[in-house]
Amino acid sequence: MFLTQLEKITTFIFDVDGVLTNGDIIASDSGEYLRTFNIKDGYALQLAVKKGYQVAIISGGSGQAMQKRFEGLGITEIFLGVADKVAVYQQLVVKYQLEPEQILYMGDDIPDFKVMQLVGLPTCPADAVPEIKAISKYISPYNGGKTAVRDVVEKVLRVQHQWFDANPSAADSGK
Amino acid sequence: MFLTQLEKITTFIFDVDGVLTNGDIIASDSGEYLRTFNIKDGYALQLAVKKGYQVAIISGGSGQAMQKRFEGLGITEIFLGVADKVAVYQQLVVKYQLEPEQILYMGDDIPDFKVMQLVGLPTCPADAVPEIKAISKYISPYNGGKTAVRDVVEKVLRVQHQWFDANPSAADSGK
Amino acid sequence: MFLTQLEKITTFIFDVDGVLTNGDIIASDSGEYLRTFNIKDGYALQLAVKKGYQVAIISGGSGQAMQKRFEGLGITEIFLGVADKVAVYQQLVVKYQLEPEQILYMGDDIPDFKVMQLVGLPTCPADAVPEIKAISKYISPYNGGKTAVRDVVEKVLRVQHQWFDANPSAADSGK
Amino acid sequence: MFLTQLEKITTFIFDVDGVLTNGDIIASDSGEYLRTFNIKDGYALQLAVKKGYQVAIISGGSGQAMQKRFEGLGITEIFLGVADKVAVYQQLVVKYQLEPEQILYMGDDIPDFKVMQLVGLPTCPADAVPEIKAISKYISPYNGGKTAVRDVVEKVLRVQHQWFDANPSAADSGK
Repeated sequence: MFLTQLEKITTFIFDVDGVLTNGDIIASDSGEYLRTFNIKDGYALQLAVKKGYQVAIISGGSGQAMQKRFEGLGITEIFLGVADKVAVYQQLVVKYQLEPEQILYMGDDIPDFKVMQLVGLPTCPADAVPEIKAISKYISPYNGGKTAVRDVVEKVLRVQHQWFDANPSAADSGK
Repeated sequence: MFLTQLEKITTFIFDVDGVLTNGDIIASDSGEYLRTFNIKDGYALQLAVKKGYQVAIISGGSGQAMQKRFEGLGITEIFLGVADKVAVYQQLVVKYQLEPEQILYMGDDIPDFKVMQLVGLPTCPADAVPEIKAISKYISPYNGGKTAVRDVVEKVLRVQHQWFDANPSAADSGK
Repeated sequence: MFLTQLEKITTFIFDVDGVLTNGDIIASDSGEYLRTFNIKDGYALQLAVKKGYQVAIISGGSGQAMQKRFEGLGITEIFLGVADKVAVYQQLVVKYQLEPEQILYMGDDIPDFKVMQLVGLPTCPADAVPEIKAISKYISPYNGGKTAVRDVVEKVLRVQHQWFDANPSAADSGK
Repeated sequence: MFLTQLEKITTFIFDVDGVLTNGDIIASDSGEYLRTFNIKDGYALQLAVKKGYQVAIISGGSGQAMQKRFEGLGITEIFLGVADKVAVYQQLVVKYQLEPEQILYMGDDIPDFKVMQLVGLPTCPADAVPEIKAISKYISPYNGGKTAVRDVVEKVLRVQHQWFDANPSAADSGK
């Protein structure tokens, strides 16, 4: 049944802190926050974009560091400094005419709670807070910033035969 | 009995290095120190401020990075570069007319030792030094910078019905 | 047989992210990425260069931080921002007239897959992705950025009597 | 016997990378390296200086970040960019008329090997390389940058009744 759900996903939505990062923010005297992203997550995200999946970012945090990182991966739907994640989610649903079962969301903390109840496939990293784990349909064995994002992107792309195949068979030739 | 103590808390006081961070300080050539804060701690702290708790920071360290981070969370009582933590503590007690049993303090090393003997609820992260563990009434299972602060703020707010409630009952409607 | 392979190595080629680093990239507002290198890897790399081994870097990432770090270790063959690792590899093979069995490569993710099938001794860190582990002849017990590189450089230099010897015997006197 | 050795120590000498840090160096585009120090190590070092111990730093690395960090702790004998650690060591021995048994050295890698054979009490972090562990008289249970330095400073100061004492007895009143 989980596989069936993966097959329907066309859209990924990710929170940033604690999901695409391990939750650390490095504060500098200038007031800038440095965030630590994972290169293996990055590989999966840019591949998903290239394969035609919709990838969106919705974060309460903000900063040029995040903006530039996500743009560099080919992501265009980047919403930072968001107070109401549900409102942004609704916008995306309308813009791309999405059904909930097409959407995988990964969040890790209470600000993700409401929006995660709307999507078809709410997921979280291994180190999400208990409230979020309780409503997730899939809990990655990996922590935020430690390939939890890679894990879910890879799972969807594999089921849909869009992931790397070291030994492509004739049956895959049309991909 | 620990629950009874949590019920009386109106004020949180935190050391910074090793409590709100994992104790790492990242040194740059300019002489600036970068510090790594945790986003889940941040969520709990801003919520405590919004709910009307007094939150204070007392640190021997200093720098704009810390000042801006804590201001961004809504904290107003920020004391950096402090040599004598007891003196600052006494100031706060007078200013807000606090009783010791209203105060939860979290520290991790010897400079916190004296002030922790004055507060009603001295607490520490899992990786505090032995001297501090010995006088703490609660030792968080989490390390400094790894949600030890979230842990104690959440515990207090939960007992006082101020934490997130996914399924609010009629009895909570007055909150 | 593995020892025999180590004896033939004259050339090391390394991917960067996830191999010479733990895969974290620290994003700043300026768009710069900070990368975290390991000092023990650095010791091994500069020693290999001094002992006359060819050391090359091939990375899809780019930036002055990497360029300067590797130059500082004495490495001259530094290829950054590479889309096609096989093409760069072929260049190096021609330039230095290398046989595959002279080359040890360490990679960790799918962009390393093709080139790793060409070299004599494909290796990877403990936390490489499954696709890469499957084609590696040696999987280091250490993670990327946590001395996986030191591990393979040291193994080669030891077998070839070029590593540190606390008690050199008469037989080594010619080295 | 180990306690007897600790009682004679008047001088600490530390390598930096892998001892006072976890061995990570964070490279920026400007060519600067950020290094991550531990606040608990810092507390022990400044205390040792205040109590009159000689504390010296000898590192192959260099940079204003290190210089400023160590100066901030009150350390005056700071030798950076050192190619020959033995030469600097000999200088210190002459300048302060030191006997080997008065000196505790902590190193972690091969560049520390020779100098560690000269001092009375060679020590290392838990994650030192095998060559260094083999010649250390004490291996800290803590890793470099993770309070290995605190561990040895605290051990010496405790034995000499110079460490923090929560309940000073009359017998200590002369200290």
